[in-house]
Amino acid sequence: MTPPPGIRFGTAYYWEYQRAPDLGRDLDLMARAKIDTIRMGESVWSTWEPRDGVFALDWMTPILDAAHERGMKVLLGTPTYAVPPWLQREHPELAVERADRRRIPWGARQEVDFTSPVFLRYAERVVRAVIGEHGGHPAVLGVQLDNEPGLHLIHNEPVFERFKTWLAQRYGDVERLNEEWGLTYWSHRLAGWEELWRPEGNTTPSYDLAWRTFQAELTTEFIAWQADLVRELVPGDRALTTCLAYQRPALHDVRLSEHLTVTSGNAYYLPQDALVHDDADAPAEISWFTTTPAGLFQAADRMYASRQDRFWVTETNATSIAGSQLNLPPYDGQLRQAAWALVARGAEMISYWHWHTLPYGAETYWGGILGHALEPGRVYDEVAALGAELDRAGDDLTGLTPDADVGFVYAHESKWALGFQPPLTLDGRSPDPDSYERVVAAFYQGAADAGRQAAFMAPAQFKRLPTIVVPALYCLSEGFAGELEAYVRDGGHLILTFRTGYADEEARARTEVAPGPLRALAGVRYLEYSTLLEPVPVRWPGGRDVARHWADGLEPEGAEPLAHYDHPHFGRWPAITRHRVGAGTVTYVGTLPGRRLMVELFRRDAPDSSRLVVADAPQVSVHSAVNVRGERLWFAHNWSGHESTVTITGPATEVTGRREALRPGPLRLAPYDVRVVK
Amino acid sequence: MTPPPGIRFGTAYYWEYQRAPDLGRDLDLMARAKIDTIRMGESVWSTWEPRDGVFALDWMTPILDAAHERGMKVLLGTPTYAVPPWLQREHPELAVERADRRRIPWGARQEVDFTSPVFLRYAERVVRAVIGEHGGHPAVLGVQLDNEPGLHLIHNEPVFERFKTWLAQRYGDVERLNEEWGLTYWSHRLAGWEELWRPEGNTTPSYDLAWRTFQAELTTEFIAWQADLVRELVPGDRALTTCLAYQRPALHDVRLSEHLTVTSGNAYYLPQDALVHDDADAPAEISWFTTTPAGLFQAADRMYASRQDRFWVTETNATSIAGSQLNLPPYDGQLRQAAWALVARGAEMISYWHWHTLPYGAETYWGGILGHALEPGRVYDEVAALGAELDRAGDDLTGLTPDADVGFVYAHESKWALGFQPPLTLDGRSPDPDSYERVVAAFYQGAADAGRQAAFMAPAQFKRLPTIVVPALYCLSEGFAGELEAYVRDGGHLILTFRTGYADEEARARTEVAPGPLRALAGVRYLEYSTLLEPVPVRWPGGRDVARHWADGLEPEGAEPLAHYDHPHFGRWPAITRHRVGAGTVTYVGTLPGRRLMVELFRRDAPDSSRLVVADAPQVSVHSAVNVRGERLWFAHNWSGHESTVTITGPATEVTGRREALRPGPLRLAPYDVRVVK
Amino acid sequence: MTPPPGIRFGTAYYWEYQRAPDLGRDLDLMARAKIDTIRMGESVWSTWEPRDGVFALDWMTPILDAAHERGMKVLLGTPTYAVPPWLQREHPELAVERADRRRIPWGARQEVDFTSPVFLRYAERVVRAVIGEHGGHPAVLGVQLDNEPGLHLIHNEPVFERFKTWLAQRYGDVERLNEEWGLTYWSHRLAGWEELWRPEGNTTPSYDLAWRTFQAELTTEFIAWQADLVRELVPGDRALTTCLAYQRPALHDVRLSEHLTVTSGNAYYLPQDALVHDDADAPAEISWFTTTPAGLFQAADRMYASRQDRFWVTETNATSIAGSQLNLPPYDGQLRQAAWALVARGAEMISYWHWHTLPYGAETYWGGILGHALEPGRVYDEVAALGAELDRAGDDLTGLTPDADVGFVYAHESKWALGFQPPLTLDGRSPDPDSYERVVAAFYQGAADAGRQAAFMAPAQFKRLPTIVVPALYCLSEGFAGELEAYVRDGGHLILTFRTGYADEEARARTEVAPGPLRALAGVRYLEYSTLLEPVPVRWPGGRDVARHWADGLEPEGAEPLAHYDHPHFGRWPAITRHRVGAGTVTYVGTLPGRRLMVELFRRDAPDSSRLVVADAPQVSVHSAVNVRGERLWFAHNWSGHESTVTITGPATEVTGRREALRPGPLRLAPYDVRVVK
Repeated sequence: MTPPPGIRFGTAYYWEYQRAPDLGRDLDLMARAKIDTIRMGESVWSTWEPRDGVFALDWMTPILDAAHERGMKVLLGTPTYAVPPWLQREHPELAVERADRRRIPWGARQEVDFTSPVFLRYAERVVRAVIGEHGGHPAVLGVQLDNEPGLHLIHNEPVFERFKTWLAQRYGDVERLNEEWGLTYWSHRLAGWEELWRPEGNTTPSYDLAWRTFQAELTTEFIAWQADLVRELVPGDRALTTCLAYQRPALHDVRLSEHLTVTSGNAYYLPQDALVHDDADAPAEISWFTTTPAGLFQAADRMYASRQDRFWVTETNATSIAGSQLNLPPYDGQLRQAAWALVARGAEMISYWHWHTLPYGAETYWGGILGHALEPGRVYDEVAALGAELDRAGDDLTGLTPDADVGFVYAHESKWALGFQPPLTLDGRSPDPDSYERVVAAFYQGAADAGRQAAFMAPAQFKRLPTIVVPALYCLSEGFAGELEAYVRDGGHLILTFRTGYADEEARARTEVAPGPLRALAGVRYLEYSTLLEPVPVRWPGGRDVARHWADGLEPEGAEPLAHYDHPHFGRWPAITRHRVGAGTVTYVGTLPGRRLMVELFRRDAPDSSRLVVADAPQVSVHSAVNVRGERLWFAHNWSGHESTVTITGPATEVTGRREALRPGPLRLAPYDVRVVK
Repeated sequence: MTPPPGIRFGTAYYWEYQRAPDLGRDLDLMARAKIDTIRMGESVWSTWEPRDGVFALDWMTPILDAAHERGMKVLLGTPTYAVPPWLQREHPELAVERADRRRIPWGARQEVDFTSPVFLRYAERVVRAVIGEHGGHPAVLGVQLDNEPGLHLIHNEPVFERFKTWLAQRYGDVERLNEEWGLTYWSHRLAGWEELWRPEGNTTPSYDLAWRTFQAELTTEFIAWQADLVRELVPGDRALTTCLAYQRPALHDVRLSEHLTVTSGNAYYLPQDALVHDDADAPAEISWFTTTPAGLFQAADRMYASRQDRFWVTETNATSIAGSQLNLPPYDGQLRQAAWALVARGAEMISYWHWHTLPYGAETYWGGILGHALEPGRVYDEVAALGAELDRAGDDLTGLTPDADVGFVYAHESKWALGFQPPLTLDGRSPDPDSYERVVAAFYQGAADAGRQAAFMAPAQFKRLPTIVVPALYCLSEGFAGELEAYVRDGGHLILTFRTGYADEEARARTEVAPGPLRALAGVRYLEYSTLLEPVPVRWPGGRDVARHWADGLEPEGAEPLAHYDHPHFGRWPAITRHRVGAGTVTYVGTLPGRRLMVELFRRDAPDSSRLVVADAPQVSVHSAVNVRGERLWFAHNWSGHESTVTITGPATEVTGRREALRPGPLRLAPYDVRVVK
Repeated sequence: MTPPPGIRFGTAYYWEYQRAPDLGRDLDLMARAKIDTIRMGESVWSTWEPRDGVFALDWMTPILDAAHERGMKVLLGTPTYAVPPWLQREHPELAVERADRRRIPWGARQEVDFTSPVFLRYAERVVRAVIGEHGGHPAVLGVQLDNEPGLHLIHNEPVFERFKTWLAQRYGDVERLNEEWGLTYWSHRLAGWEELWRPEGNTTPSYDLAWRTFQAELTTEFIAWQADLVRELVPGDRALTTCLAYQRPALHDVRLSEHLTVTSGNAYYLPQDALVHDDADAPAEISWFTTTPAGLFQAADRMYASRQDRFWVTETNATSIAGSQLNLPPYDGQLRQAAWALVARGAEMISYWHWHTLPYGAETYWGGILGHALEPGRVYDEVAALGAELDRAGDDLTGLTPDADVGFVYAHESKWALGFQPPLTLDGRSPDPDSYERVVAAFYQGAADAGRQAAFMAPAQFKRLPTIVVPALYCLSEGFAGELEAYVRDGGHLILTFRTGYADEEARARTEVAPGPLRALAGVRYLEYSTLLEPVPVRWPGGRDVARHWADGLEPEGAEPLAHYDHPHFGRWPAITRHRVGAGTVTYVGTLPGRRLMVELFRRDAPDSSRLVVADAPQVSVHSAVNVRGERLWFAHNWSGHESTVTITGPATEVTGRREALRPGPLRLAPYDVRVVK
């Protein structure tokens, strides 16, 4: 399929939220900023259908027409994530029940059990009305199905009953379930499905993993249902997508995205000093926003991974995000830095959330391109300058596919299982339910520090990059272990970490000697492991750093020790080993290394490629991607408030700025600058 | 009205809580300490009415008689805040429901929905019985109506239904509400009042402000109802009051006090090192207790403001307050310091809570003048010495009206709105619901550090002091903006801060350029603002300090910059500006300045007055007030454990101590000393 | 009764939890490690009775037979703490209700109201079945009744109704209750039992103490009922016990243990650096696990105290305990250290929990002697070496009775009362509900630092050791005060602390001058006391340290001051006083002293005894116990990673190691070593 030309530059546009909207002025201001795509309509079911069965659909037409006149495209949303008060009142039983059976109170959005046939009947009617009316408008680029699905685990009784059916289909009979989940333990053996306890009090890991898997499937099923419905209503060239918030608890982005024509997602980040390079040992925060430059790149790489394809950023910071207490407008240049970072990693659309800052509602302090005063200001100017720059870059950006040196295997099942039984603590005592993301982020940061580019992949999406990291893949199948082995034998560089392979697909600790199906491959075994309550010094030939949080008691069985703990007790075990197998190597990392050791690790295990642009300082990152014409673009970011440089190693042309030819040698980067060359 | 002579010196006296009470001994000990007022009876409905309709009223008579014999006065309470078990059992539906509809369990007090007609029927009967029986006794000085009202927001269904009616009266129809509250957002548009969602899940700021306003009105209405009822039952010269706990969530002290003849309130403070002057940048805690000397003065000034008149302190520390884990008896001298501080700011009565420390119940560790052993000890001796001193001061203290250099505008609406959408964080992430009080306290501390005396006023009580501070007045009306402008034009010195005027009376962010209706007056505008996650250096001609928490991006439009951020990004904007308008000035403070900068600010903006007594050191405060004879008294406190001095600038007589004539020159203050001169 | 020979060495063995159990291999591995006792069967009611009334009892027989063949004994459990799903489903009303009336959800264990006649009917049937079938097997050493009882306070309505009856029996009528509990306060006076409020909202200390006492009685009653039942079913020589988790909220171990033939309990501790001697001022954590060497000894001494007799450790660390995030396998030697420490303090059995680490269930990360791989590793080797060593020590260990220099009076009533009204804070503000344990642990640590051995005793178990500490015995009866006085007069050394005697048996503050009934005995009084928010320097002849958390304002009345605060305010009062009475002394400690002062205190007040083994360094502890032959054994632990020594003062033979004769002089202790001599 021919990729669309250049990059789509957009914003969410809520005309209907304004008290005195001025459609022409808004769209003209957008056009001036080279905004060519607007996203609309997804939040106002009560405007589309103010009373049960009474529809008001016309208000959107002038906006579509006005956009069309200006050559702008529209991403049109179905409004099903925000149900109207009348529906809440007619069907209070639709409210999502929490684990404790208490209903989530109305007052925000996404409070309904979207699996309910009652809800689906109303949802279908409004989708048919809205999309039927407007989906064929020539301005419509595509349809967004619902919004940020998977916010809640749904504990309503019908859903729990479906869970029993789902289990029965998976396990056949309760005896099998008793066996697989180990229900002899603590007298949990069931004599029939009706005896299954509800999730609230559950303490069984296999149960929790099944429940989480089932909940994510409900979300996928709902979006698939909408996709099928909308497909009937719109011309075949319209994109079907939904805006994903990747940290939603009931979301499996890969499975869900199979039903979309393009992945869309949020890329929110904390700007100001949180988007500046530092040397702290704390990894990026990866929640509904990210911190650090590496965190932002990681978010982009996760989006690419959903369909292993270019993606749309349907929401990213225009300015401050979040609540009234955390207002962080970007420093000059940071909006531009973030946009180019996303483009570098495969974003086909950069769309800000949102056009105008709302004077009321929960998101009053979630800033738009225009502030409350609706006056263009510094942010508008930065957006407009960026819009012009992207526009000038034009076809250079068409179909950009990001390069990757290192693959990261990422699996929701292990994330969920380690959320239930976390390996790390926050404070030396209590479990950190985000342990999985912390481990992944620490290794991702290591790759970034070493100047390596990464790609994510689910086990089912496995592809053979030169180096593959499998961090904390707790629930490892034997099949995937076999794939990893073949990869290594054929010359791959595999990096395994503590907890990888410790459990099976039921989140049961394996009863083989650890790391179970990876033992022979890694050439190492362990019979014990320890939490590290304090950092432990670790040394390797030529370097020293610390190890944190965890230490597997590694006993080499063919592997060579690479780094050692400096400790009376832990010193008996290596911290890291490497094993040559066939044409490849397997590095086993039994701890969470500090950043210096991480760099050492990735420099050794991830072969460097030849580069047109080379970073001269740690605060500079260089990424590359290849466009539809086969040209490789190089993106050099200066993530600091000081001037920095990169070195150009051959003749090049700048894609940003004045698009001039550049000679080999140092290239200056202003504070918070980014320069793209090809 | 002629003020009563001197100061009333009192204590709450719970004869009925003693297992072996000795009335004569108690009252004689009080008389020896010059205690002339006791407060009684408000907590024991189950003693007044042990069974439904069965009353026991006689037990109070001997106490009233014994007080009268000794010339002591009684503040008699109605017992409606503590309902008896039989009423709880007969009417379990009276229990207050929390937002989540769960009933507050019985076991403390103030657990009932006092708006219920069922409750009001019982309450009226017991008030008629008790006050009818005793209200006319010659010892009775006045009646306290209920106690510390407004503890809970009441979510019972009848109250929620009344809220809908209240909204209908305010807004007319739901279309207007949809418009004003912005209910298009997230599909919240209502088709009828019956569709209004309950408060639990609410995310709409305007809704929350309405709900809080409504709840405070319920409290006012209840006290007004009791006032009307009691007025029928007692002679016309009896005072009607209630004891206010100013931090109650459902309290608007100004509106409520319109129905009283005198304001009464709690003035609890942490003593020991928390009542010592320090230079820390943390402002006073202003919760049910205060910290720091400035915190105590602020509490007193808030009480004066309720009716812009002298007030009664019905509760203040005798010794340790609070729970079993926080026992802080005052250092020698601190009780005396606190009492004179309250007198200096308009207290007409100082009444300790309470006479004897209770051996049982929730407040076992809330100490009285007598400890558990009921033996006079150090605290009794301090109270008695103070009683004697106040008695000697006698008429000098009659009708004391506190002086004020600086007025602080304080508005519950802005407090509530900023409680829902707080501008400050506690920890760099989560919102601080007490943001409003923190901003107010920081500026109050600044005035205190600069040696300026303050007065509080609600917008409706506006009066023209030489300097007026309007801190964080988020919900600013256009009308009040006009009043401020007129004040400045006529020569006033106005200090505005970040968040002042940002929103309108519906807690909506204004859609004009900020600071909205104050923009022209302040001569400054801003299109953006930022949270400061770390303190940012700030400098002005001749000084340096830090700015914290917030920075408005101030663009002068006629105003002159006074202080600047020292920061690559924020440095482009001034931190503080000043604008001359007419005969006055407007200083706009876009951040939360450190204490040095605050002093600079108040020294410049609040003209100093000539003083008989001048502080020689930061740990010394000097306050002044004018008595009914027109004499100005000067109160000099040494808030430290070291000797300090003040300087007397003219001939004076001491009101404290030996009441001798003093010559101009240094006057010595012992550790924790206070000396009053005229 | 003749004590059994040597020490029982055991493990919990859950054959039924294995997916592919190998009974012979398991028992042979155990036998190789000299394990002679296994504990079984207590957790699998749903295996014993898979459906209502359908029993499967045979599976245990081969295990019992196999154990018997190898000369191993079995502690057989009744399964009543883990009810099967079918019972939960048939009787949902059995779920324990929390204070807020919400049912504890199924999914773990111990979720039922064991007082319910419905439950007891089912429990009796399964106990009769299981114990009737297997209790007479010759391998059965005894029966464990239920497991770790007292996990929840039970708030179900029938229990609350029984509580009213219980109160009526104790107090006669509500007037008496009104009087004793002070219910005049806050209108809580009752007119009848039906008016009693439920515990959720309770604020009355006496109510809470009664409720806690009642709840512990329910637990005792349940175990007593099972004991009577099982006694009918097994031969008379079988032990009856239950495994106690000492921190359970509804447990009075002394009262409960009256119904057992031997005390059993958990002795979990954090190993690694948490089991190393340090000088920090923080006392041991005493929760479901302990920290520090002194914490472990304290746990053992508490177990001895339950019946003032030797005890079984039915659960102790094999390796990591607790959750997935806190894996702390012991350092080499620590398992051995812990076991010998428990033996030194009277453990007659050391039984590990558990044999094999479970691959599923809530306790997946609670490690067994074998890890998940079921391979013998470092832990198995350490256990086996220890088993051999204990076996070699043989009869030397028979009937070992621990020595004690210092008695600690420990009372659940004071623990509960100070849990409701804690004297200490965690953070300078909020109450620490574990205040009582913190005070006890700090004084216990002091005794340990001074090289003194301790014994615990409830007031009802009072016995006259040379020195008795009565820490924070808040609820002191007059009778016990009299016992203490007689003890001192006859030559005892009594150490009293702040809060001791402050309240009476109803948890009411006493209305006599403090310390109430101990005032004359202590020769000191106080009328006030203060929280110390910061440590205050304290000095005594020859030393300095700090005082923390609390200061009684001690006024000597015959006592001699021993240590003083160095503080402008607190300096007026001594921190510690000593009073000579008759042939003894009373030391009153008005604060929580630092460790140096504690050592000074115990060195003065606890006479040293002559010792065969003397510690040469603070990291070395020496304990002693006398065996059935009257020989005194000395246990020297080196709680550090460095070599240390003790000094042997006379001829000795080693019981550990090579059991050789030792000459007087220094005896070397390797890192984490323990050596036992006689």
